[in-house]
Amino acid sequence: MKSDLDRLMAERNLDAIVVEGPDGLESANPDYNYFVGGRHIPGLIIKKRGEPAMLLHGPWEQNEAEQTGLTLVLLNRWNIREILQQFPDRLEARVEQRRRIFADLGVRGRVGIYGTVRAGPFFALMTRLAQQLDDLEIVAELDRDVISMARLTKDVDEIERMRAVGRKTCAVLQAAVDFIRAGRIDDDVVRGADGAPLTIGDVRRLMLREMAALGLEAPAGMIISQGRDAGLPHARGDDSMPLRPGQAIVIDMFPREAGGGYFHDMTRTFAIGYAPPELQQAYNDVLGAFTMVMNAFEAGAPTRTYQDMVCAYFEERGHDTIRRTYPIEEGYIHSLGHGLGLEIHEDLSFSSLVDRGDTIEPGAVFTVEPGLYYPSRGFGVRIEDTCYCTPDGRFESLTPFPKELVIA
Amino acid sequence: MKSDLDRLMAERNLDAIVVEGPDGLESANPDYNYFVGGRHIPGLIIKKRGEPAMLLHGPWEQNEAEQTGLTLVLLNRWNIREILQQFPDRLEARVEQRRRIFADLGVRGRVGIYGTVRAGPFFALMTRLAQQLDDLEIVAELDRDVISMARLTKDVDEIERMRAVGRKTCAVLQAAVDFIRAGRIDDDVVRGADGAPLTIGDVRRLMLREMAALGLEAPAGMIISQGRDAGLPHARGDDSMPLRPGQAIVIDMFPREAGGGYFHDMTRTFAIGYAPPELQQAYNDVLGAFTMVMNAFEAGAPTRTYQDMVCAYFEERGHDTIRRTYPIEEGYIHSLGHGLGLEIHEDLSFSSLVDRGDTIEPGAVFTVEPGLYYPSRGFGVRIEDTCYCTPDGRFESLTPFPKELVIA
Repeated sequence: MKSDLDRLMAERNLDAIVVEGPDGLESANPDYNYFVGGRHIPGLIIKKRGEPAMLLHGPWEQNEAEQTGLTLVLLNRWNIREILQQFPDRLEARVEQRRRIFADLGVRGRVGIYGTVRAGPFFALMTRLAQQLDDLEIVAELDRDVISMARLTKDVDEIERMRAVGRKTCAVLQAAVDFIRAGRIDDDVVRGADGAPLTIGDVRRLMLREMAALGLEAPAGMIISQGRDAGLPHARGDDSMPLRPGQAIVIDMFPREAGGGYFHDMTRTFAIGYAPPELQQAYNDVLGAFTMVMNAFEAGAPTRTYQDMVCAYFEERGHDTIRRTYPIEEGYIHSLGHGLGLEIHEDLSFSSLVDRGDTIEPGAVFTVEPGLYYPSRGFGVRIEDTCYCTPDGRFESLTPFPKELVIA
Repeated sequence: MKSDLDRLMAERNLDAIVVEGPDGLESANPDYNYFVGGRHIPGLIIKKRGEPAMLLHGPWEQNEAEQTGLTLVLLNRWNIREILQQFPDRLEARVEQRRRIFADLGVRGRVGIYGTVRAGPFFALMTRLAQQLDDLEIVAELDRDVISMARLTKDVDEIERMRAVGRKTCAVLQAAVDFIRAGRIDDDVVRGADGAPLTIGDVRRLMLREMAALGLEAPAGMIISQGRDAGLPHARGDDSMPLRPGQAIVIDMFPREAGGGYFHDMTRTFAIGYAPPELQQAYNDVLGAFTMVMNAFEAGAPTRTYQDMVCAYFEERGHDTIRRTYPIEEGYIHSLGHGLGLEIHEDLSFSSLVDRGDTIEPGAVFTVEPGLYYPSRGFGVRIEDTCYCTPDGRFESLTPFPKELVIA
């Protein structure tokens, strides 16, 4: 939570943090978004340890800036035209502007850098700045940085928003299920009222419309994959493909609040009409793994425990896992989940490959998504809820949607 | 155009370019998007001078990767688990993986860096990599970099897509105008059929629905601002505000093709029912400036010429301009336009503040958007088309929409 920032900064001996907010990257700049609440305000966040965060912004964004509740600093205070006359080289002018900002606001010492940026300009600016300023040590954290760690645990307001997104996401999936159920199976194809085959594209369009109607944004990449594609975890699915009975259909949705807000992430696997025994068995195994870990979670426990638990569970049932084999293409081939919030993947890892010692703390929101993938046998299964560790250490699903394989 | 890349790399003595494609930044990573065509493929583009671009990607994105037409390299080739066993520090492991990639693919010498990245992890990785590799010189360009320059001129396929987005954008605005025109003025408010006031929010929702129906994405920040707000170029407008007759209403739309494609950018200023003389006069001045520069454009000419021309035009008519006064809050307070394509602001500048010597080359697509801002008098005016410099040096608007102030 934001209230953890000073503690985290102290633990890492950071004197200040700077969050870049370049224009045009709003919703893809979650660190900055965390401070400005999704508003369109190109600028810069500077927070010194023990002091409130400042938002440096231009005069055009005055109205929006006032709504953030942050301490406001007008960028006009540093006259870029004057600086450019003194420093005709554009990079040197940018460096000089930043140098003056840091000097005037007392930013020095160990300074952490955050936000989403353009690789070239940012690297040029920071490298040159570090060369020029003796009292500045740029601290570039690879991961588990102070802002990621603050963002990982959600406060009450954030959870309320995330619950609402979960309910809406489930409503969209329910609309898709209702739409499919209204079709009839004829000649090994699911057909609509007019007799034409229902396609993956039809389902996708319906879901995108429902999302828009509910104020959700659908980032590219919603997965509606059938058959062999369902066995490839990131295949988005072929819109021209007609829905067929008895095939695995994986629907993985990760919409967010419109305007760059909080994400939800959920997956269900369906089979229309009936499920072949092999698919039903894999489904049972995945659902078994899901239920097992949901019952096993404990606040403060290492994520690694649960990834191992799921690997063991699958291995006992004859499936290969990423713990045993790497690279791996069939069986349980990924990690159990990931943090989520203002990003679809936040910095809580259940990976078998890298053990960072991550633990599940009260306030954490993360996905639980065991899956089994058999593209060679023409199917895959994944079940995913968004899960919340409450302040008192209970575990709740934020995804109120049944887990039934067959759509009758 | 992409075909310019080798020439641009040679001019800047670059041996290779590397475009970062981290997960989760797709549509906000235009440099990478330029190569992968908006597909969701976390990975890396590496192009050595004189050789085709390579896409390094994971096995999960094989299908999507195959559609790019790029030379494919599986990231599996470098076993991250093995590397992590050898280099338990996660940053050192990432550096080692990148070192092996560069060594195996022959990336050395002057290497340009591009793409949208997270500030901290990228700075950490690149700084450490540069320390380790003697044969690597990281070239971080501030602006007008090789990819920006290639992207600035569009090929025939890109223009066809941009024309289509322009037509759709105009259709959305036409729907809004029709919606407003269907209202009636009563008690100094525009009212709908049910007698309730039409609000800015009503217009915005209608436009967002129309955009979705036409396959357009609407990034946050569409402007529908009335009265004083219209005098603040970036005020998005107050959704609760009823539409009022005789007020300036600025509608600035910049949707893009769904899935992170090409943008369009257009603005019209309206007054419902009638325009007060002061507003009409400002409108005539803005339209006069617009028409003048559209007729004056010549391929190869410096952008600065036209910014100066518009400033002179406005100054002659009694308006202050950014050329004369800085900072400035009333009059003509911004630049004439900007490049656009896969980003709403691409790297062609008409700025009065920084003269980079930019010229308008055949293939360029850019906005032309003179405006006058008088928040103290309760209005602002802007007129904006997206404009294209054809290969034979003519100038075409891609925004087929009339420029009439009053909605009768």
